Amino acid sequence: MGIEIERKFLVQGEQWKLGATRSLLCQGYISAELGRIVRVRIDGDAAMLTIKGMTTGIRRAEWEYPIPVADARSLLDELCQKPLIEKYRYRLPIGGLIWEIDEFLGDNAGLVVAEVELESESQLFDRPVWLGEDVSHDHRYANASLLQHPFSHW
Amino acid sequence: MGIEIERKFLVQGEQWKLGATRSLLCQGYISAELGRIVRVRIDGDAAMLTIKGMTTGIRRAEWEYPIPVADARSLLDELCQKPLIEKYRYRLPIGGLIWEIDEFLGDNAGLVVAEVELESESQLFDRPVWLGEDVSHDHRYANASLLQHPFSHW
Repeated sequence: MGIEIERKFLVQGEQWKLGATRSLLCQGYISAELGRIVRVRIDGDAAMLTIKGMTTGIRRAEWEYPIPVADARSLLDELCQKPLIEKYRYRLPIGGLIWEIDEFLGDNAGLVVAEVELESESQLFDRPVWLGEDVSHDHRYANASLLQHPFSHW
Repeated sequence: MGIEIERKFLVQGEQWKLGATRSLLCQGYISAELGRIVRVRIDGDAAMLTIKGMTTGIRRAEWEYPIPVADARSLLDELCQKPLIEKYRYRLPIGGLIWEIDEFLGDNAGLVVAEVELESESQLFDRPVWLGEDVSHDHRYANASLLQHPFSHW
Protein backbone atom coordinates (compact mmCIF):
# COMPACT_ATOMS: atom_id res chain seq x y z
CA MET A 1 0.00 0.00 0.00
CA GLY A 2 1.15 3.51 -0.77
CA ILE A 3 -0.22 6.91 0.10
CA GLU A 4 -1.00 9.21 -2.82
CA ILE A 5 -0.83 12.94 -2.03
CA GLU A 6 -1.73 14.90 -5.10
CA ARG A 7 -2.52 18.47 -6.15
CA LYS A 8 -4.58 19.05 -9.27
CA PHE A 9 -4.86 22.23 -11.37
CA LEU A 10 -6.40 23.49 -14.56
CA VAL A 11 -3.88 24.84 -17.08
CA GLN A 12 -3.61 27.94 -19.24
CA GLY A 13 -2.32 27.97 -22.82
CA GLU A 14 -0.13 25.29 -24.32
CA GLN A 15 3.31 26.39 -23.15
CA TRP A 16 3.49 23.31 -20.87
CA LYS A 17 3.83 21.09 -23.96
CA LEU A 18 7.41 22.32 -24.47
CA GLY A 19 9.85 19.67 -23.27
CA ALA A 20 7.15 17.23 -22.21
CA THR A 21 7.05 13.56 -23.19
CA ARG A 22 3.69 12.12 -24.22
CA SER A 23 1.96 8.75 -24.01
CA LEU A 24 -1.57 7.59 -24.76
CA LEU A 25 -3.46 6.24 -21.74
CA CYS A 26 -6.60 4.15 -21.87
CA GLN A 27 -8.34 3.39 -18.59
CA GLY A 28 -11.55 2.02 -17.23
CA TYR A 29 -13.19 1.21 -13.92
CA ILE A 30 -14.33 -2.15 -12.56
CA SER A 31 -15.60 -0.22 -9.55
CA ALA A 32 -16.07 3.55 -9.71
CA GLU A 33 -17.48 3.67 -6.16
CA LEU A 34 -15.85 6.43 -4.13
CA GLY A 35 -13.48 4.90 -1.57
CA ARG A 36 -13.42 1.57 -3.44
CA ILE A 37 -12.17 2.51 -6.87
CA VAL A 38 -10.70 -0.30 -8.99
CA ARG A 39 -9.02 1.04 -12.11
CA VAL A 40 -7.46 -0.73 -15.11
CA ARG A 41 -4.99 1.32 -17.14
CA ILE A 42 -2.90 0.71 -20.25
CA ASP A 43 -0.03 3.18 -20.64
CA GLY A 44 1.92 2.36 -23.81
CA ASP A 45 3.22 -1.19 -23.40
CA ALA A 46 2.58 -1.37 -19.63
CA ALA A 47 -0.62 -2.00 -17.69
CA MET A 48 -1.66 -1.52 -14.08
CA LEU A 49 -4.46 -2.54 -11.77
CA THR A 50 -4.95 0.19 -9.17
CA ILE A 51 -7.18 0.28 -6.11
CA LYS A 52 -7.89 3.63 -4.48
CA GLY A 53 -9.30 4.10 -0.99
CA MET A 54 -11.15 7.01 0.57
CA THR A 55 -9.72 10.49 -0.03
CA THR A 56 -8.95 12.60 3.04
CA GLY A 57 -8.14 16.11 1.81
CA ILE A 58 -5.53 15.49 -0.90
CA ARG A 59 -4.31 12.19 0.63
CA ARG A 60 -5.50 8.76 -0.46
CA ALA A 61 -4.44 5.15 0.12
CA GLU A 62 -3.50 3.39 -3.10
CA TRP A 63 -2.59 -0.18 -4.00
CA GLU A 64 -1.06 -0.72 -7.43
CA TYR A 65 -0.07 -3.89 -9.28
CA PRO A 66 1.44 -4.35 -12.75
CA ILE A 67 -0.59 -6.80 -14.86
CA PRO A 68 -0.10 -8.20 -18.39
CA VAL A 69 -1.33 -5.80 -21.11
CA ALA A 70 -3.47 -8.62 -22.59
CA ASP A 71 -5.24 -8.98 -19.21
CA ALA A 72 -5.81 -5.23 -19.04
CA ARG A 73 -7.24 -5.25 -22.58
CA SER A 74 -9.71 -8.04 -21.74
CA LEU A 75 -10.70 -6.35 -18.44
CA LEU A 76 -11.27 -3.05 -20.29
CA ASP A 77 -13.27 -4.79 -23.04
CA GLU A 78 -15.31 -7.20 -20.94
CA LEU A 79 -15.75 -5.70 -17.46
CA CYS A 80 -15.18 -1.96 -17.38
CA GLN A 81 -17.96 0.58 -17.66
CA LYS A 82 -18.14 2.27 -21.07
CA PRO A 83 -17.09 4.62 -22.50
CA LEU A 84 -13.47 4.12 -21.43
CA ILE A 85 -11.40 7.20 -20.61
CA GLU A 86 -8.68 8.04 -23.13
CA LYS A 87 -6.18 10.82 -22.68
CA TYR A 88 -2.72 11.92 -23.63
CA ARG A 89 -0.48 12.13 -20.59
CA TYR A 90 2.39 14.59 -20.83
CA ARG A 91 5.22 14.32 -18.30
CA LEU A 92 7.29 17.39 -17.53
CA PRO A 93 10.04 17.66 -14.86
CA ILE A 94 10.02 20.99 -12.99
CA GLY A 95 12.04 21.79 -9.86
CA GLY A 96 12.69 18.15 -8.95
CA LEU A 97 9.04 17.11 -9.36
CA ILE A 98 7.29 15.46 -12.30
CA TRP A 99 4.17 17.24 -13.49
CA GLU A 100 1.66 15.05 -15.31
CA ILE A 101 -0.64 16.95 -17.65
CA ASP A 102 -3.64 15.03 -18.96
CA GLU A 103 -5.28 16.11 -22.20
CA PHE A 104 -8.55 14.23 -22.37
CA LEU A 105 -10.08 12.78 -25.54
CA GLY A 106 -13.57 11.54 -26.48
CA ASP A 107 -16.43 12.75 -24.25
CA ASN A 108 -13.94 14.70 -22.13
CA ALA A 109 -12.19 16.49 -25.01
CA GLY A 110 -11.32 20.07 -24.11
CA LEU A 111 -10.37 19.19 -20.55
CA VAL A 112 -6.69 19.54 -19.61
CA VAL A 113 -5.59 18.93 -16.02
CA ALA A 114 -2.14 19.08 -14.42
CA GLU A 115 -1.24 16.94 -11.41
CA VAL A 116 1.77 16.78 -9.17
CA GLU A 117 2.46 14.12 -6.56
CA LEU A 118 3.88 15.35 -3.25
CA GLU A 119 5.65 13.72 -0.29
CA SER A 120 3.43 15.52 2.24
CA GLU A 121 0.41 17.82 2.26
CA SER A 122 2.58 20.78 3.31
CA GLN A 123 5.34 20.29 0.72
CA LEU A 124 6.14 23.50 -1.15
CA PHE A 125 6.57 23.35 -4.93
CA ASP A 126 7.32 25.66 -7.85
CA ARG A 127 4.19 26.83 -9.62
CA PRO A 128 4.71 26.91 -13.37
CA VAL A 129 3.36 30.07 -15.08
CA TRP A 130 0.81 28.04 -17.05
CA LEU A 131 -0.89 26.79 -13.88
CA GLY A 132 -4.58 27.69 -13.58
CA GLU A 133 -7.22 27.15 -10.90
CA ASP A 134 -6.53 24.65 -8.08
CA VAL A 135 -9.17 21.90 -8.43
CA SER A 136 -7.63 19.42 -5.94
CA HIS A 137 -10.84 19.39 -3.91
CA ASP A 138 -13.31 19.47 -6.81
CA HIS A 139 -14.57 15.92 -7.20
CA ARG A 140 -15.92 16.59 -10.73
CA TYR A 141 -12.36 16.35 -12.03
CA ALA A 142 -11.78 12.85 -10.63
CA ASN A 143 -11.45 10.43 -13.55
CA ALA A 144 -13.96 8.02 -11.98
CA SER A 145 -16.40 10.94 -11.80
CA LEU A 146 -15.77 11.97 -15.45
CA LEU A 147 -17.09 8.53 -16.36
CA GLN A 148 -20.58 9.42 -15.10
CA HIS A 149 -20.40 13.15 -15.90
CA PRO A 150 -18.08 13.69 -18.87
CA PHE A 151 -16.68 17.18 -19.40
CA SER A 152 -18.62 17.69 -22.65
CA HIS A 153 -21.91 17.51 -20.66
CA TRP A 154 -20.95 20.13 -18.05
CA MET B 1 -7.30 -14.25 -17.98
CA GLY B 2 -8.49 -17.75 -17.22
CA ILE B 3 -11.83 -19.48 -17.52
CA GLU B 4 -13.26 -20.99 -14.35
CA ILE B 5 -15.64 -23.91 -14.87
CA GLU B 6 -16.88 -25.09 -11.53
CA ARG B 7 -19.49 -27.43 -10.07
CA LYS B 8 -20.74 -26.82 -6.55
CA PHE B 9 -22.52 -29.26 -4.20
CA LEU B 10 -23.78 -29.50 -0.67
CA VAL B 11 -22.22 -32.32 1.36
CA GLN B 12 -23.50 -35.06 3.65
CA GLY B 13 -21.82 -36.14 6.87
CA GLU B 14 -18.16 -35.59 7.67
CA GLN B 15 -16.53 -38.51 5.87
CA TRP B 16 -14.94 -36.07 3.39
CA LYS B 17 -12.63 -34.79 6.15
CA LEU B 18 -10.63 -38.04 5.98
CA GLY B 19 -7.39 -37.42 4.10
CA ALA B 20 -8.09 -33.75 3.46
CA THR B 21 -5.67 -30.92 4.17
CA ARG B 22 -7.07 -27.76 5.76
CA SER B 23 -6.27 -24.06 5.67
CA LEU B 24 -8.06 -20.98 7.05
CA LEU B 25 -9.26 -18.53 4.42
CA CYS B 26 -10.26 -14.96 5.05
CA GLN B 27 -11.78 -13.04 2.16
CA GLY B 28 -13.60 -9.85 1.40
CA TYR B 29 -14.99 -7.94 -1.55
CA ILE B 30 -14.02 -4.52 -2.90
CA SER B 31 -16.82 -4.99 -5.42
CA ALA B 32 -19.51 -7.62 -4.88
CA GLU B 33 -21.39 -6.57 -8.03
CA LEU B 34 -22.34 -9.58 -10.16
CA GLY B 35 -20.14 -9.68 -13.25
CA ARG B 36 -17.60 -7.29 -11.70
CA ILE B 37 -16.53 -9.07 -8.54
CA VAL B 38 -13.21 -7.97 -6.99
CA ARG B 39 -12.15 -10.29 -4.20
CA VAL B 40 -9.24 -10.13 -1.74
CA ARG B 41 -8.26 -13.44 -0.12
CA ILE B 42 -5.67 -14.51 2.42
CA ASP B 43 -4.99 -18.25 2.38
CA GLY B 44 -2.35 -19.08 5.00
CA ASP B 45 0.78 -17.13 4.06
CA ALA B 46 -0.37 -16.30 0.52
CA ALA B 47 -2.78 -13.65 -0.75
CA MET B 48 -4.63 -13.09 -4.02
CA LEU B 49 -6.56 -10.37 -5.76
CA THR B 50 -9.19 -11.98 -7.98
CA ILE B 51 -11.56 -10.42 -10.50
CA LYS B 52 -14.53 -12.44 -11.69
CA GLY B 53 -16.62 -11.64 -14.76
CA MET B 54 -20.16 -12.64 -15.68
CA THR B 55 -21.16 -16.26 -15.14
CA THR B 56 -22.57 -18.15 -18.14
CA GLY B 57 -23.91 -21.46 -16.85
CA ILE B 58 -21.01 -22.83 -14.79
CA ARG B 59 -18.32 -20.93 -16.79
CA ARG B 60 -16.82 -17.62 -15.75
CA ALA B 61 -13.85 -15.44 -16.79
CA GLU B 62 -11.38 -14.92 -13.96
CA TRP B 63 -8.26 -12.78 -13.56
CA GLU B 64 -6.06 -13.60 -10.56
CA TYR B 65 -2.93 -11.90 -9.21
CA PRO B 66 -0.79 -12.75 -6.17
CA ILE B 67 -0.33 -9.74 -3.88
CA PRO B 68 1.66 -9.25 -0.65
CA VAL B 69 -0.21 -10.51 2.44
CA ALA B 70 0.28 -7.10 4.11
CA ASP B 71 -1.53 -5.45 1.17
CA ALA B 72 -4.36 -7.97 1.42
CA ARG B 73 -4.67 -7.34 5.16
CA SER B 74 -4.93 -3.56 4.65
CA LEU B 75 -7.43 -3.99 1.77
CA LEU B 76 -9.54 -6.32 3.94
CA ASP B 77 -9.37 -3.93 6.91
CA GLU B 78 -9.84 -0.63 5.10
CA LEU B 79 -11.83 -1.24 1.91
CA CYS B 80 -13.77 -4.49 2.00
CA GLN B 81 -17.39 -4.73 3.05
CA LYS B 82 -17.86 -6.19 6.52
CA PRO B 83 -18.25 -8.77 7.89
CA LEU B 84 -15.47 -10.59 6.05
CA ILE B 85 -16.03 -14.21 5.05
CA GLU B 86 -14.00 -16.76 7.00
CA LYS B 87 -13.96 -20.45 6.25
CA TYR B 88 -11.86 -23.53 6.52
CA ARG B 89 -10.96 -24.88 3.11
CA TYR B 90 -10.30 -28.61 2.92
CA ARG B 91 -8.55 -29.99 -0.15
CA LEU B 92 -9.09 -33.61 -1.12
CA PRO B 93 -7.76 -35.35 -4.27
CA ILE B 94 -10.26 -37.78 -5.84
CA GLY B 95 -9.90 -39.42 -9.26
CA GLY B 96 -7.32 -36.94 -10.55
CA LEU B 97 -9.32 -33.88 -9.48
CA ILE B 98 -8.97 -31.74 -6.36
CA TRP B 99 -12.18 -31.23 -4.39
CA GLU B 100 -12.30 -28.10 -2.27
CA ILE B 101 -14.72 -28.31 0.64
CA ASP B 102 -15.48 -25.02 2.41
CA GLU B 103 -16.70 -25.07 6.00
CA PHE B 104 -17.95 -21.56 6.71
CA LEU B 105 -17.51 -19.72 10.00
CA GLY B 106 -19.15 -16.63 11.53
CA ASP B 107 -22.52 -15.61 10.05
CA ASN B 108 -22.32 -18.52 7.62
CA ALA B 109 -21.53 -21.21 10.21
CA GLY B 110 -23.32 -24.47 9.41
CA LEU B 111 -22.81 -24.13 5.68
CA VAL B 112 -20.47 -26.65 4.02
CA VAL B 113 -20.03 -26.60 0.25
CA ALA B 114 -17.85 -28.76 -2.03
CA GLU B 115 -16.48 -27.45 -5.32
CA VAL B 116 -14.60 -29.05 -8.14
CA GLU B 117 -12.97 -27.24 -11.05
CA LEU B 118 -13.37 -28.83 -14.48
CA GLU B 119 -11.65 -28.46 -17.86
CA SER B 120 -14.96 -28.28 -19.72
CA GLU B 121 -18.67 -28.13 -18.92
CA SER B 122 -19.12 -31.71 -20.18
CA GLN B 123 -16.19 -33.26 -18.27
CA LEU B 124 -17.21 -36.40 -16.37
CA PHE B 125 -16.00 -36.83 -12.79
CA ASP B 126 -16.28 -39.30 -9.93
CA ARG B 127 -19.01 -38.36 -7.46
CA PRO B 128 -17.88 -39.05 -3.92
CA VAL B 129 -20.49 -40.79 -1.73
CA TRP B 130 -20.73 -37.75 0.59
CA LEU B 131 -21.89 -35.48 -2.24
CA GLY B 132 -25.28 -33.83 -1.69
CA GLU B 133 -27.47 -31.56 -3.78
CA ASP B 134 -25.99 -29.84 -6.86
CA VAL B 135 -26.16 -26.09 -6.18
CA SER B 136 -23.98 -24.95 -9.11
CA HIS B 137 -26.79 -22.74 -10.44
CA ASP B 138 -28.07 -21.47 -7.08
CA HIS B 139 -26.71 -17.97 -6.70
CA ARG B 140 -27.39 -17.89 -2.93
CA TYR B 141 -24.31 -20.03 -2.42
CA ALA B 142 -21.95 -17.59 -4.18
CA ASN B 143 -19.57 -16.14 -1.60
CA ALA B 144 -20.27 -12.58 -2.77
CA SER B 145 -23.97 -13.29 -2.21
CA LEU B 146 -23.36 -14.76 1.28
CA LEU B 147 -22.00 -11.34 2.19
CA GLN B 148 -25.44 -9.74 1.76
CA HIS B 149 -27.49 -12.80 2.77
CA PRO B 150 -25.46 -14.89 5.23
CA PHE B 151 -26.50 -18.51 5.72
CA SER B 152 -27.61 -17.92 9.33
CA HIS B 153 -30.36 -15.55 8.06
CA TRP B 154 -31.83 -17.99 5.51
